[in-house]
Formats: sequence, structure tokens, C-alpha cells
Amino acid sequence: MLTRIDHIGIACFDLEATAEFYRDTYGFEVFHSEVNEEQGVREAMLRINGTDDGAASWLQLVQPIREDSPVAKWLAKNGEGVHHIAFGTADVDADSEAIRDKGIRVLYEQPRRGSMGSRITFLHPKDCHGVLTEIVTAAPAPASGDPSGH
Amino acid sequence: MLTRIDHIGIACFDLEATAEFYRDTYGFEVFHSEVNEEQGVREAMLRINGTDDGAASWLQLVQPIREDSPVAKWLAKNGEGVHHIAFGTADVDADSEAIRDKGIRVLYEQPRRGSMGSRITFLHPKDCHGVLTEIVTAAPAPASGDPSGH
Repeated sequence: MLTRIDHIGIACFDLEATAEFYRDTYGFEVFHSEVNEEQGVREAMLRINGTDDGAASWLQLVQPIREDSPVAKWLAKNGEGVHHIAFGTADVDADSEAIRDKGIRVLYEQPRRGSMGSRITFLHPKDCHGVLTEIVTAAPAPASGDPSGH
Repeated sequence: MLTRIDHIGIACFDLEATAEFYRDTYGFEVFHSEVNEEQGVREAMLRINGTDDGAASWLQLVQPIREDSPVAKWLAKNGEGVHHIAFGTADVDADSEAIRDKGIRVLYEQPRRGSMGSRITFLHPKDCHGVLTEIVTAAPAPASGDPSGH
């Protein structure tokens, strides 16, 4: 069951300049940044608000690091803008299977790694009225005292 | 101060078919629908989650009702997809003035009427890294027993 708008994914040519725009214009700060080699992108996550399912809504700024990454091709065609939207669920495996069973094309056979240890999949935009749609389960919060927590 | 992702605005050719897609695929229900003559659109609001500023995040489905509406022109160029994103604030007047003072083009001299009695303005996408960005203050919740409330 999808319980929140998890994030809006925004493709950009320059991650630092775009993050600076969001900070200077609105006061939104970068909470986390990482490289996703598999997706071929650098990402910055800006936390906007908490949500009533106990999680949060984010802006995800995405800059390609390779000419052949899907985001690089998208930017070459469309220019900067909203690349995808993401809904959050407690169980991406069950929800993506249920969505697949409705005849929507799910782009990954199994969910893959997303930002901040999340697990994600994507739905084909042509099956979603033109919207590239991500389904995401956030990583569990680290237990108190967990040495891997941050 | 912007305190939430208020909504994601999705442009579509057929409001009923698109609302049916969101209900059948994800279980998202239409909470409210209306016509905005000034914007030249029919709208359906799907409530996705509550936010920790006491408001909510929505999907806003938008179908043009006139060939000369901005959304009709956008659809003719882009096809169906994410048309804009909106951030919520308690004071759209103060925030839009502060943003204008930073050199961002604010499209309305004064905020106008948006969905569900809200007050809104838009920022020029070319000043926002390609993202048409709305700033919105929700209508106050009706007082208990207010006969105009619902």
C-alpha cells in the first residue's frame, strides 16, 4: 500500500548549482548525497517535510555521471526538469508485484538499491499517463547504538 | 517559509481515465474536483498523505477545457506528464515577495485562486532549473459547525 509522496526526482546538469538554487531560494538543505554507479548518477536529497506514515517527503536532485546513463539521455532530450515521481510503501516487493499483475510494466525484475539504502523499482511511463513512477521502501531506521547508523 | 510538498500537478487529456488509473493501480481516490475557469482546466485532487505542518500532500490531475489554456499548449508540446510541482506555505504573499526579491520571476502580481480555496502563485520555470514551481497557501479549515464546511 502506497502511503506517501516519497520524493520528486529532478534531473539537472550541475548538482551543486541546483542544490544552491534550492537552498538560496527556499531554504531547503541537502540532507544526504551519494553516487549511484548502477544508475549512473550523483544525487542530493533535500528533506522537505515529515509524513503521517512516519517517513518523509524529499526532493531528489540527480545529475548524470555518464553519457550513457538513462538520466543523461533524458536530459539531452528534455532539458532540466522533473524526471520522475516516487510513492513510498512499507513493502516494495508486494506492491510492485501487485502493480505488475494489473498489467503495468515494472522495469526491474526485482527491486534495486535507491537513495539512502532504500529499495526501489520503476513503472513504465507509457503505462502511467506519461509519468515515470518509482515505488520505494525506505531503509529501516538504524537501531539506537547501531555502529553502522548515522 | 515553505513547509511541505503540497502537490504534484499532472497534465492529462482525460481526467476520468487518469483518475481511474490512479485508483485502480494504487488505490488513490479523488477527494475533490472542480473547474478553474481562469486557468482553463478541470482538476481532480487525490489526497496521498498528511504532512507534519498539519496539511497534506496531493496529486492534482489537470485537464484543459480550452484550446488556448496554458495546460492545453503544454500538453500539445509535451504530451501527458508532470506539469508542475507545488510547495506549501502558511503565507504565500510573504514568500512570493521574498522569492521575487531574489530575482526569480513570479508569474502573478498577486496570488490567485487555486484548488479547494487555496491561494497560489507560480515561478518561471526558466528561473527554477526547468521546473514550473507553484507556491500555495491552503484555505483555512472550516470551523466546526460552519455550514459552508464539508
